[in-house]
Amino acid sequence: MAEIKIFNPDGLAKPARTYSHIARAKTQEVVFIAGQVSADASGATVGKGDFEAQCAQVYANIHSALRALGADWRNVVQFTSFLVRPQDAAAFRAYRGREFPKMFPGGAYPPNTLLIISRLADENYLLEVQTIAAL
Amino acid sequence: MAEIKIFNPDGLAKPARTYSHIARAKTQEVVFIAGQVSADASGATVGKGDFEAQCAQVYANIHSALRALGADWRNVVQFTSFLVRPQDAAAFRAYRGREFPKMFPGGAYPPNTLLIISRLADENYLLEVQTIAAL
Amino acid sequence: MAEIKIFNPDGLAKPARTYSHIARAKTQEVVFIAGQVSADASGATVGKGDFEAQCAQVYANIHSALRALGADWRNVVQFTSFLVRPQDAAAFRAYRGREFPKMFPGGAYPPNTLLIISRLADENYLLEVQTIAAL
Repeated sequence: MAEIKIFNPDGLAKPARTYSHIARAKTQEVVFIAGQVSADASGATVGKGDFEAQCAQVYANIHSALRALGADWRNVVQFTSFLVRPQDAAAFRAYRGREFPKMFPGGAYPPNTLLIISRLADENYLLEVQTIAAL
Repeated sequence: MAEIKIFNPDGLAKPARTYSHIARAKTQEVVFIAGQVSADASGATVGKGDFEAQCAQVYANIHSALRALGADWRNVVQFTSFLVRPQDAAAFRAYRGREFPKMFPGGAYPPNTLLIISRLADENYLLEVQTIAAL
Repeated sequence: MAEIKIFNPDGLAKPARTYSHIARAKTQEVVFIAGQVSADASGATVGKGDFEAQCAQVYANIHSALRALGADWRNVVQFTSFLVRPQDAAAFRAYRGREFPKMFPGGAYPPNTLLIISRLADENYLLEVQTIAAL
């Protein structure tokens, strides 16, 4: 597996939440996963209007992609997270604060960039998470 | 060339359109192409108010960048696409549905993340596409 | 260090400003830095309402991250820059036009994608810059 080091350098605010500032990957194989939304295997939208249910589906989808690669959460080197409602930012942090310690038991949370944008591909989607991993 | 595998894993909805969920690149050379907008070689905006014309220019620009690298569409491992008007999403899918089979004759469409945002660098730009490739 | 070539290909408009179209990195080690905002080492927001002060803090933060890696500006292969106020785009270009020649004395400005979005993680943040580097 790639040699991945995730850490927070001196001089930057210690992240209060579930991300780190830097992921450094010595790797010869990089994986790009399309932004995942709250759609199940049939393509149906899951959790209309339910932000927390959508979070669960989005990370389940990312995990499916990782497992298909023989990889896991520890291979993730970058998340970019897009929300459409500013008021969901707190719920997003709460969800990650509760779930990420289980997903990343070592506490090496990948870098994340959180952005609030106008809309996703479908108006029912409340979040989308784009992932880069190193194998 | 990089050994690139583009595929859709089990457990994720089969993309109805012109993208795939995963691009996996065994590579020692990665290329980052600045987001391309509808500007021609002189810098003039092409297709003011004409979304389809802007799509054509944007992908032509990306192709120019790829060719300058001795690369081609098959080297693309990630697109991130930004639109400013939600109503253009359908036209974007239609454009890709028509053009991508020619650009990617093998049908290995790279992962794409489609985002609707407030504005691009110039108010006349209707879309911007950021590209990562592996050589 | 990675062998990084930053250049503008024929056929694309010569960037009038402080970015280039392509960064090509022959590398075995890639670094992903979480989007940096205008927070100091204690986590306090710097430059509330002062776009230029926020630019200075954001790039200082990215530089801290790079130095922690034994790297520097010349290692950057991609910037993605998010602003929340369209009217700051001109100030952003002015800031970069003034500061980037000092940061990148060789003039090899990394690719940048400039996006105007609805909001960042905190409503006081006026910009966020996400960075990828090659070591």
